[in-house]
Amino acid sequence: MASKIMSINAGSSSLKFQLFEMPEEVLLVKGLFERIGLEDEMIFSYSIKDAKVKTSVKGKSHEEAINFLLHFLLERKVLTSLDELSGVGHRVAHGGEDFKTSSLVDSCALQKIKDLGKLAPLHNPVNVVGIEALQKDLPDCPQVAVFDTSFHQTMEAKNYVYPLPYRFYEEDSVRRYGFHGTSHQFVAAEAANYLEKPIESMKIISCHLGNGASICGIKDGKSVITSMGFTPLAGLMMGTRCGDIDPSIIPFLQNEKNLSASDMDKLMNAESGFKGVTDFSSDTRDIISEAEKGNERAKLALDMFAGRVKQTIGAYAAELDGVDVLIFTAGIGENSAVIREMICQDLTFFGIAIDQDQNQKNSRRISSAASSVEVLVVETNEELMIVRDTFHLI
Amino acid sequence: MASKIMSINAGSSSLKFQLFEMPEEVLLVKGLFERIGLEDEMIFSYSIKDAKVKTSVKGKSHEEAINFLLHFLLERKVLTSLDELSGVGHRVAHGGEDFKTSSLVDSCALQKIKDLGKLAPLHNPVNVVGIEALQKDLPDCPQVAVFDTSFHQTMEAKNYVYPLPYRFYEEDSVRRYGFHGTSHQFVAAEAANYLEKPIESMKIISCHLGNGASICGIKDGKSVITSMGFTPLAGLMMGTRCGDIDPSIIPFLQNEKNLSASDMDKLMNAESGFKGVTDFSSDTRDIISEAEKGNERAKLALDMFAGRVKQTIGAYAAELDGVDVLIFTAGIGENSAVIREMICQDLTFFGIAIDQDQNQKNSRRISSAASSVEVLVVETNEELMIVRDTFHLI
Repeated sequence: MASKIMSINAGSSSLKFQLFEMPEEVLLVKGLFERIGLEDEMIFSYSIKDAKVKTSVKGKSHEEAINFLLHFLLERKVLTSLDELSGVGHRVAHGGEDFKTSSLVDSCALQKIKDLGKLAPLHNPVNVVGIEALQKDLPDCPQVAVFDTSFHQTMEAKNYVYPLPYRFYEEDSVRRYGFHGTSHQFVAAEAANYLEKPIESMKIISCHLGNGASICGIKDGKSVITSMGFTPLAGLMMGTRCGDIDPSIIPFLQNEKNLSASDMDKLMNAESGFKGVTDFSSDTRDIISEAEKGNERAKLALDMFAGRVKQTIGAYAAELDGVDVLIFTAGIGENSAVIREMICQDLTFFGIAIDQDQNQKNSRRISSAASSVEVLVVETNEELMIVRDTFHLI
Repeated sequence: MASKIMSINAGSSSLKFQLFEMPEEVLLVKGLFERIGLEDEMIFSYSIKDAKVKTSVKGKSHEEAINFLLHFLLERKVLTSLDELSGVGHRVAHGGEDFKTSSLVDSCALQKIKDLGKLAPLHNPVNVVGIEALQKDLPDCPQVAVFDTSFHQTMEAKNYVYPLPYRFYEEDSVRRYGFHGTSHQFVAAEAANYLEKPIESMKIISCHLGNGASICGIKDGKSVITSMGFTPLAGLMMGTRCGDIDPSIIPFLQNEKNLSASDMDKLMNAESGFKGVTDFSSDTRDIISEAEKGNERAKLALDMFAGRVKQTIGAYAAELDGVDVLIFTAGIGENSAVIREMICQDLTFFGIAIDQDQNQKNSRRISSAASSVEVLVVETNEELMIVRDTFHLI
């Protein structure tokens, strides 16, 4: 039977939604509320069929956004009754070790998600606001939580325990969790589908390169290793995040510059990465444009980013003892031929070679005939993955 | 003409020396002062020809140790006169960006080494004490400084700049320096010599695995990338050091546990790594022994260590676009067949395969006939490297 299922992704001042007809995976409407809580009005943009609309609506809370959304769906006749909604899937940032898969949200699960706010103080609480608002308006509609972390729960201890005093893992839950799990899982499945091979037969390295960026090594369809860690700061250089650095730099700078722990955390998350190195932008499009004009710092930042990605691909090829498929996804991965080329050049030892024309066109397959590794560009769709998981669980 | 040249390696409470006849590289005497400054007596051990002696001597400063050493060399007739000493080479921890090679110590160089104490507060000042004591006793004997960092000064900016606000590099010298340079350079040269190939023709990955551990990617005989960073904390898991971790863990634990920046620095340097994970030892020999008895935490620690080394080998193979020679050196690298095997297993994608028998015997070449990568065990000898550099500079 056909089901209408909605995905909800609540951020600190935003709320994204997509509504699908399942199992056909037909997108009926998608939209975004922005500037929630900043003023008395929110900005609401949506696209339905071919129309794209941006408007402002009254209200200043996630609850009001959700109330407006439900009325909007009825008014625009996307739904004839709210009962038509078979389920809602929520993106939840952190599932800790409690959630190894997506989960129906009962009171017990909701409490766990709240408790995990300790590990994701900026994200889980607002995800909870979204869940509770929907529960209030649609008490009979099943809610599902889809976690950014759960795909990586298949990692072995050797890849998630940090070489710190072990009590910090036992007492404070300090371990590698990894994020972007929904995206890595989605694009790996898409790649297997495209290649018409069972996912279990392939060693996949998935590069989710956006403003946030992470890489995942996948074997037998399972996450073996990933570059984000206890938090989404770890691993690669990103738009404004530093990724891995010598940990001693942190106490050194704290003492040298008289910075608190929280100052350092903010500096590493919001003032570093591309923004920190170039001093002018966190957006690779700006940086590529400046690099083409000869800006040396912009060139350096791109070289640093591509180099770190390249090294991580090598590291994960060692972890998996090989790589059959290399995937690029997310904003940079899907759209930047320049950066994909920088990453893939001089990886002939790994059997990686790209076709310049296909790469320029952002084609699905960008590896050349000579490449023993399939190099693919795969559009990520976390919302569809959330809706799929929800459809399977309700 | 034959020259007698001595190496000096001054630590916080120790002083190691070796005296060679050059250019024949014949070791005449080597020894070690320990517990300097802790009591009124120091422990002095030395080996000369076949004799090994351990004794205690009066004195409680590096100066007194050096005075004693010079008298000892005359008394034991290793030297007939102090004029026979053609030069002294000092191991110096940090050469910053000032010293791209080993250097004769004049007053200007000495001042720079003192200034670099800001970056190596535990090491450079005591290295200076050694240099000044020798200068006082042997004013006409040339002193040479050999830096742990200078071999890595060939790294390109993309491999040494951190993705932090760029001003921290410009104003505070925060960048990757890398350490163990003397060792990586020495074993790479030894490997080329053993393989009878020019070092410029090979891509080498050198694994210096001791209580401190680092890996270096070498191309054209030059360091391209290395795992230690701004400090020797970075990179691999080590005896008591954590190596790279998600940087956000540091402010998280500081806030959670009310730890100062200096507390965290100490914890990451002295309470982490093998010691932190196992809770019982920083020594891999103890840990292997416990793992063989079934201790799960010991097994985990070994898996973590070997996994991190394996991933770094993969990362550097990507950076170099290949690897022709893989070198193991230092305490663990030279002696632990178990750990070498853990690292090298399941690296067939890289063309790495080891011969079990040769590995067990700690043979020079441990790769099997099927291995396209030469896997070598090379004894490091930083003192000989220091003496060679000194001989070339005086």
